[in-house]
Amino acid sequence: MKVLNLAQIKERLKDIDLLSIIEEGFALYSQEKTVVPPVAELLLPEQNGEVHIKYGYVKNDDYYVIKIASGFADNAKYGLPNNNGLMLVFSQKTGEVLAVLHDEGLLTDIRTAVAGAVAAKYLAPKNIKQIGIVGTGVQARLQLKYLQAVTSCRDVMVWGRGIEKLTAYKKDMQADFNIKTTLNAQDIANNCNLIVTTTASKTPLLFADDIQTGTHITAVGSDTVDKQELDAKILAKADLVVVDSIEQCKMRGEASQALRAGLITTKDMIELGNVILAKAPKRRDDKQITVADLTGVAVQDIQIAKAVL
Amino acid sequence: MKVLNLAQIKERLKDIDLLSIIEEGFALYSQEKTVVPPVAELLLPEQNGEVHIKYGYVKNDDYYVIKIASGFADNAKYGLPNNNGLMLVFSQKTGEVLAVLHDEGLLTDIRTAVAGAVAAKYLAPKNIKQIGIVGTGVQARLQLKYLQAVTSCRDVMVWGRGIEKLTAYKKDMQADFNIKTTLNAQDIANNCNLIVTTTASKTPLLFADDIQTGTHITAVGSDTVDKQELDAKILAKADLVVVDSIEQCKMRGEASQALRAGLITTKDMIELGNVILAKAPKRRDDKQITVADLTGVAVQDIQIAKAVL
Repeated sequence: MKVLNLAQIKERLKDIDLLSIIEEGFALYSQEKTVVPPVAELLLPEQNGEVHIKYGYVKNDDYYVIKIASGFADNAKYGLPNNNGLMLVFSQKTGEVLAVLHDEGLLTDIRTAVAGAVAAKYLAPKNIKQIGIVGTGVQARLQLKYLQAVTSCRDVMVWGRGIEKLTAYKKDMQADFNIKTTLNAQDIANNCNLIVTTTASKTPLLFADDIQTGTHITAVGSDTVDKQELDAKILAKADLVVVDSIEQCKMRGEASQALRAGLITTKDMIELGNVILAKAPKRRDDKQITVADLTGVAVQDIQIAKAVL
Repeated sequence: MKVLNLAQIKERLKDIDLLSIIEEGFALYSQEKTVVPPVAELLLPEQNGEVHIKYGYVKNDDYYVIKIASGFADNAKYGLPNNNGLMLVFSQKTGEVLAVLHDEGLLTDIRTAVAGAVAAKYLAPKNIKQIGIVGTGVQARLQLKYLQAVTSCRDVMVWGRGIEKLTAYKKDMQADFNIKTTLNAQDIANNCNLIVTTTASKTPLLFADDIQTGTHITAVGSDTVDKQELDAKILAKADLVVVDSIEQCKMRGEASQALRAGLITTKDMIELGNVILAKAPKRRDDKQITVADLTGVAVQDIQIAKAVL
């Protein structure tokens, strides 16, 4: 059993074409070449913590992967990041444990961000006037970092709940981007046509009436039944509602909210893998509104764990 | 993150009062002092493999535990044991990974066997004339080993499908027990009043008409929807049907088979933790027939992982 620590994992990541492996993962998933059972979840309400176990395998492959990712919202008071976890790689032939990737949540953060770049690659308008980022945390940083591979736009507006975090975000990101900040999420909707939402909000931050023609929104914050960053009417208004997994997004994320509100049906949901495979429509022109609802699928974990191994 | 290998885990096991911690676990579970979500399962039909993820925590404790245990039925052809896996211990406060117990399935095997001893402690008749073991594998050995703590009987009859495995079993166990072997499972029912079934059978091996008055049967082999070692009529005939988890045994194991056959109702199911706590009846006399259906509950994994830590 191989054990890789965070430093070793970071070193290996340098040689991996992340966009390709995540894209391949979604394509495999939508072709039903993977086995991905429903997410297992452990909630720790007293600690404001939640743990997701995502697991599965690519059929006729050598491995299966079990990923544990936790988010403990109060970790700042212990001087720790909220996210943590590890990935486990097993032999598909014998069940032997081959590797423990003690990534402390990094690989989950990265595969989530890279999925955002994949969504933007297929769904963002050609001319991006300004990128909008909703949130100021780890994912707000990583999404922007990986978007560089799929757009040349470096003008960014970021929304956060407080000046302090916005200032820190600007400081961290301004080497590569022109960063504007706002405390009013409506500014993002009004001024950006490639938006990524990255918060753990349980009430909508963006509203249908504010979204401009030609905008693409990738929503990555909501991965549970109750989290919601987008007014469900945005999904009703969108020309395309793309999800990472129809099966999973019926239960979790923005699409599940719109489904429960009766504003869309499952027939309105297109899978990202099918967009990649050109089996489903991608953006047709710079007028359409598109939404990608990414709840995080085990196939992303499988792909990144295999690559790091 | 601490990593313990199999040799280190075996060393630590020597100092642990296993019966007490597993008993405590069932009691905590039945008092609803634990959080134990449904078992997560990954099936690999082409490799004849199945993986169970069992996880949860004792409320207001320091840890949560995620256990992965696999059974790959064809592993003998690679010179490997069928069972494998590991246990992970996390901080309940922050989600940090505290320990990887690379037990290769040993802790699962042991906590399963110890649960059999706990069931026998509360449910076996006072005078055991002969112990009956159905099966010749790892669990058939371990169940007998741990029964020594709760009965002085050393006369054993073991059933297996072939002479070779029966001979190996007898050779391995005869230092501590008087072992008789049989190829006819009915002999076990006719001659033993403490029976443990340990196979992965999908069709019943023991039948209601053959079970003698005063017998206790612990069934540990069936932990899925489709496995079954006991004719469901045995549960209908039994004076007590004790399960490790009512919630879980509605879905998995012998009780679930009897429920689906309409031969018992959930009201007939008593939880082992409540028997331990004397909140539910244990065996009243040496005439009753009792069944313990043990599907394996995460609280056992939590208890043993914490003790080894």
